[in-house]
This record gives sequence, structure tokens and C-alpha cells, in this order.
Amino acid sequence: MADPVRIGLLGCGTVGRAFADLLDERAEAVEAATGQRPELAGVLTRGEGSFEEILERSDLIVELIGGTDVARDHVLSALRAGRPVVTANKQLLARYGEELFAAARDSGVQLRFEAAVAGAIPIVRVIQESFGVTEIGKVFGIVNGTTNFILSEMASSGAPYEEVLARAQKLGYAEADPTDDVTGADAAAKMAILARLAFHAPVTLDEVVYEGIEQVKPDDLAYAKELDLSLKLLGVAERREGGISVRVFPCFLYSGHPLAPVGGPFNAVMVEAPAITEVTMSGPGAGGIQTASAVLGDVVSILAGEAPLHEVREDLPIVTDFTSSFYLHLEVADRPGVLAKITHVLGENEVSVKSVVQRGIGDEARLVMVIHECLESRFSAAIDEIAQLDELRSAPRSIRVIEEEFV
Amino acid sequence: MADPVRIGLLGCGTVGRAFADLLDERAEAVEAATGQRPELAGVLTRGEGSFEEILERSDLIVELIGGTDVARDHVLSALRAGRPVVTANKQLLARYGEELFAAARDSGVQLRFEAAVAGAIPIVRVIQESFGVTEIGKVFGIVNGTTNFILSEMASSGAPYEEVLARAQKLGYAEADPTDDVTGADAAAKMAILARLAFHAPVTLDEVVYEGIEQVKPDDLAYAKELDLSLKLLGVAERREGGISVRVFPCFLYSGHPLAPVGGPFNAVMVEAPAITEVTMSGPGAGGIQTASAVLGDVVSILAGEAPLHEVREDLPIVTDFTSSFYLHLEVADRPGVLAKITHVLGENEVSVKSVVQRGIGDEARLVMVIHECLESRFSAAIDEIAQLDELRSAPRSIRVIEEEFV
Repeated sequence: MADPVRIGLLGCGTVGRAFADLLDERAEAVEAATGQRPELAGVLTRGEGSFEEILERSDLIVELIGGTDVARDHVLSALRAGRPVVTANKQLLARYGEELFAAARDSGVQLRFEAAVAGAIPIVRVIQESFGVTEIGKVFGIVNGTTNFILSEMASSGAPYEEVLARAQKLGYAEADPTDDVTGADAAAKMAILARLAFHAPVTLDEVVYEGIEQVKPDDLAYAKELDLSLKLLGVAERREGGISVRVFPCFLYSGHPLAPVGGPFNAVMVEAPAITEVTMSGPGAGGIQTASAVLGDVVSILAGEAPLHEVREDLPIVTDFTSSFYLHLEVADRPGVLAKITHVLGENEVSVKSVVQRGIGDEARLVMVIHECLESRFSAAIDEIAQLDELRSAPRSIRVIEEEFV
Repeated sequence: MADPVRIGLLGCGTVGRAFADLLDERAEAVEAATGQRPELAGVLTRGEGSFEEILERSDLIVELIGGTDVARDHVLSALRAGRPVVTANKQLLARYGEELFAAARDSGVQLRFEAAVAGAIPIVRVIQESFGVTEIGKVFGIVNGTTNFILSEMASSGAPYEEVLARAQKLGYAEADPTDDVTGADAAAKMAILARLAFHAPVTLDEVVYEGIEQVKPDDLAYAKELDLSLKLLGVAERREGGISVRVFPCFLYSGHPLAPVGGPFNAVMVEAPAITEVTMSGPGAGGIQTASAVLGDVVSILAGEAPLHEVREDLPIVTDFTSSFYLHLEVADRPGVLAKITHVLGENEVSVKSVVQRGIGDEARLVMVIHECLESRFSAAIDEIAQLDELRSAPRSIRVIEEEFV
């Protein structure tokens, strides 16, 4: 019988334990599929174990420590020592991807990371392998389950953000410190990774512009319902004239959009390209077992001796000003001529209105508009002007909209 | 510069031409990703070219002839001559998979077939590689775009089957001879392939029980709407006690089901396993360019030297009697006691009713019921008895239902 393949496991939290259990449970299946029997060579936890000793007696390293300090050192050491690495660490890849991929390339070993993006959904493999030579135009979707759960709950219950967040924390869908999720930072890291894969460009986290969902009001969701819109926190990486754009922002979708029905803590990613039209993949966001399963899939691919495609580089700068559609919410004095004033400012800036809902409340009125696609800089200029109008009762609120209609 | 990799193309219909164009267009990208430049070594059409000559000067064969006679001979010859083969031919794989996979194994070359199932959706790679050691419980979905288009149109327009079929033919969504699609035979071939992959069992086409959509009436769709159900032609491959079941049948889904919103000519496949919960993939069914793109993805994987997982065998017999839920449509004389008689027969057979819609029309009544999950043999026995009742005005019609509710 062949010697077992020794796997060094760094980190033993929820995912680490789930992976150790799954590896044990599926060891026979792994051996049958790859001809190699996997075996845990050691587990590094915060309190116990020596990384150097574990590295020494491992053929492959699985990094599930999280964070970017120790994890970075260990992953680099492992790659430089010629060990393939599987990691679920999106922050690490989004920040230090260049350095890590270079180290893997120099040593001629694999660095795999299916579990870093979108839980059980094998979007990394599909983009890298199935669509490896496809000219991808756009990758976008819902890549954070916490915020999707919160927005779904806000829409169905009408409750405010703070209340729904507390409920999400109780149910385990949000962490005690939810900052990374609700600010969009977590989604931004995932989009940096997906953009790198889709466009062969070295996108890093600090190039991703992101907004979160903390500013979303129940009002916005209620008015949006009348316009047949539902709100998602979207990550969007796309080719735009002159380069690419990678962003995370709350966005309204019409009900026919394939992402509109994706509710609760689910993730969904769409890939668009001329040769495939569009492919959508959805599934549960990261849970312990789902993440462990994605890690195991990568381990199996390494054991099977799968050779990844060569790294290709495209020279694609990040572009920042381009066209979007917007939802615009204004609270104004309910006086004759207000709407005319506002539409005049919009018109002056070449911003045109698709639909309006107006509603009076006492001596105030609320104007909710959907704005046709226009240059974002023009829209911002118009909003700045509108904010100065005497009739405005509070700061304008705007959210992007995807106008595209689907069958 | 390295010698180019010579690709022999068998067949030059819609997909063949799309593949030749795509290969030409993406040749540089393929070379960048794999280090090997692809080049067409020859094209075999019905009228022109010699297979032997093309085989002789090819490193890899792409089979897009279709059919199972010539295609089988050529694919076997190519594999035996040590050439890897990429095919989009579902009938070939569903009928002669055992023989073909054995030939590939004996020669130590790859046989890849992403394009045979679900168009641009990379379900074959995902099941084989991402979920290669996952204990899959169920693979199911909409794997025929023609019938999904017809059912979507029937539901939205209320028009009868024959009329909508004619419209689908006009739009190019159905072929002049639609038999393979509308009888479920095409979907059955795809499910045989998916079942083989998911369960590592040598399922062949003749083991797949299938029904088509020719018997579906606008009435069924109208009543179903009242029960919040939409109709899909589903392919289902699942583990059942004692083995597996692989079937194709029209089936009602509640509106919350992830497959319910999949309309028009789209395909969608769900994979369920404890370790991943469920992952859904959707996209356009087979079009020329989408199929060509899937073929190219396989060619790239072969050029990259990707080693597939070993073939594993599980001993799983096909089981035929198990539980399902049903929709039942009865036309009966509108007399007192009819419903009692019918529910008595159902009860005697241990079949219980979930919901009923009854409607009188003149001296007739229509009864539409949803039946709770019960053994299919019991349900059939009950239906046979009901069909004998004096009060029946036409043969009972039944369609399976997936009761499962989703978030």
C-alpha cells in the first residue's frame, strides 16, 4: 500500500474541526478517487503545536487559522517549502494574493482556495477551469449571507436595520462584531478574488470600492416594493470601457432578475460571457461543513495531480466613472413647483427619470424616483445641487438599480 | 515554439462550426492558459473527409457528429488509438457509456463530455471534481430547454400543448421532429449520465423510467395555479432505500422551490448532499455557441494535463417503488357522496389527501387534489379502483408533486 498523504491542519475552529471530521469520514472515498490515502499529520491551534514541526511532517497544508498575520507567514513558508496549500482565507488572498501566487508559482506547487468565496458554491473552480479561456464580461452576485439575510428580513418584516441585525446575531447569521459583513468589506475581499480570476488582473482589496447596508431604511424597502424592486448587497466585477470595475454596493433589482428571489443567508453568483450567455450558481453561504467540504474538494484535486491552468496576465486598469441606474429618495416641502425644480436640476445634468412615486405626509412630500442609466459623476453632481435646495427636508438618499429585464 | 496540438473535428453542423470558430477566436487564450497552441487538423463531415486520415494526424478528437452508430465507432477507435476524446453526445454516453469509459481507461486517455448535459452549465465538472468525494443524495433539475419553454408558455398563455409546440418550433426552441424532447427521452439520457457521475453506478438509458409532457392539459396548469404550483419536466436521480432511482416526469413545484422560477428555454440542476446542503446551477440550455464553449472547456482541461479522478464503483441497484406526492385531477358526476366514495378508496389504500379544489360545471364536477407522500404502488392501486367508479366521467389524471417547502 502506498504511503498516506500527510495533511497539516492550521487552525481548529468551527471550520477546522468540521474539516478534520469530514476528512476522517471521507478518507476511503478520497483514496478511491485519487489513489492516495489522506491522514492528518498534525493540527496547529492557537495554544498548541509547532508550525515548523507540522510543516516538516506534512505533504500538504490546509490553512484555516484566519486573519492575515500568522496565516500569511505560514502560507508563505509552506509554499516556499514546496508544500501545496489549501486555504479558505479570503482576506489573506485579497490582500496578499500577488505575493502568495508568486510564491506558489516559484515553487511549482498549487495554492487552492475554493472555500474563500461563496461557501459550497464551486465558483472558483468554474471560473478557473470551465471558463478558463472564456472572455468573461461580468461576474456578480450576492457573496455575503449575513447581509442577504438582514435585507430579506427587513423587506419581509418592515423592521429597522438595528432590530433585524440583533435577530441575525441571535440566530447565528451575524457575528457579535458584524462590521466586516455589514460594511461590505467581506464581500469586497471576495470580489477582489473573483475579479482576479475572471479578468486575469492583479486586483487587490484596496482597489475595490465598497458600501454596506447600515444606511438602508425600512422606508426604502417599502417604496421599492411599489416599484417592484428588491434590495440586495451586490458584488460586481465587470469589464467597462478602458478597464474593469470591481465594487460592492446595495442595489435594487427588478423581480424578474435571477438574483431577486435569492433570500435568507444564501449566496448566488452570475457569470456573463458571450460564449455562455449567463450561468448562475447559488447555494448556502459559508457554514462550517460547507466550507470544510469546499476545502476537501481542493485537497482532492491536489491529490489527483490536477494541473491548474497557467497564470495569465491582462493589463486592465480599474475604471471608476461609468454609467449606473439609481433609485433616489427625497423628502421635500410639499409646495407647488418642487418636482419641477428637482427635475430641472436632473435635466441640466443630463440625468433622466424613469419612474416617480410621490406621496404627501403633512406639509412634507416624499419623492421616490428611478433614474435611467447615466454617468455616476453626473448623477452625483445633480444630487449635490438638489441637496442645496431650500425645499429639501433631509439629505437625499440614493441606491443603485439594475434596470436590465430578464425573461 | 512547441508543436501545436492537432484537433480532429468530427461533425460540422451548428455546434461543429461554432466550435471551429471559437477555437480559432480563443487559440491565443488557450495557448496562454495551457502552453499549447491548438490547431484544427481536419474536419469530418457527412460528405467529406476520411476518419482514418483525420485520426492519424490528430492528437485529440472532438466528436460532434451526433447519433450513436458512426459516432460510437469513431469514438471507440479514437480512444483505442490513444487519443483523448471530447464529445457532446448524450445519447452515445447514456447508451454505450460502459464500453466507452472502459476503452478510455484501457488506453489511459480522457473522455470528457461537459457539453452533453445542460448546455453552458458546468454541471459535469462540478459533480466530478468539486463534489467528487461528496456523498451526493440527489441530483435533479430541468435538463431539457424545449419542454421547459413549452410548459412556461402553456402556463402563461393558457394555450394547449399542440399550439405552444408549434410556436416553439417556429421560434427554433423545438425541432421539426420534437419526439426526443417532448417524450422525455432527451432528458432521460442526460439523467443517466448525471446519475452515473453522482452515484458512481453504471446507469444506462434503458434503466431510466421517463414520461414526457404530451399529456399535459391547460386545465392542469390552471388548477395548479390555484394551489400555488408550477409545472416542470424534472429529471431526478436520487438515493432511495436499497439503491437509487433515476426518472424523468412532469412534476408540480410550490412557488418557493428554487426551480419554480426557472422559465423559458433555461436549464437548472440542483445537487443535494449533507456536506453542501444544496447547490443550484442554472443557465441557457444547449445553443450552438454554449455547447461549443463547453466543448472548448474540456479541450483546455485535456491540454492542461488535468488528471481526472479515478473511476469508482458503487453497487447500487435501481429501485422502482417508493414514495411520492401527487396532484390528482378527476372529472366526476356532480352527485352527493362522490367525494366520500373517492376519499374512501384513497383511505383504504393508505393514501391521504393534503388539499382539494372542487368545482361544479353543469352536472359534472372537477376534483383537483394534492395527495401526501405515499408509496407509488399504493397510489396506482387507488387510481385503478377510482377509475372503475360509475361516477367517473373521464380517466383520472395524475402528476407528481414535490411538497418540500423552501425558505
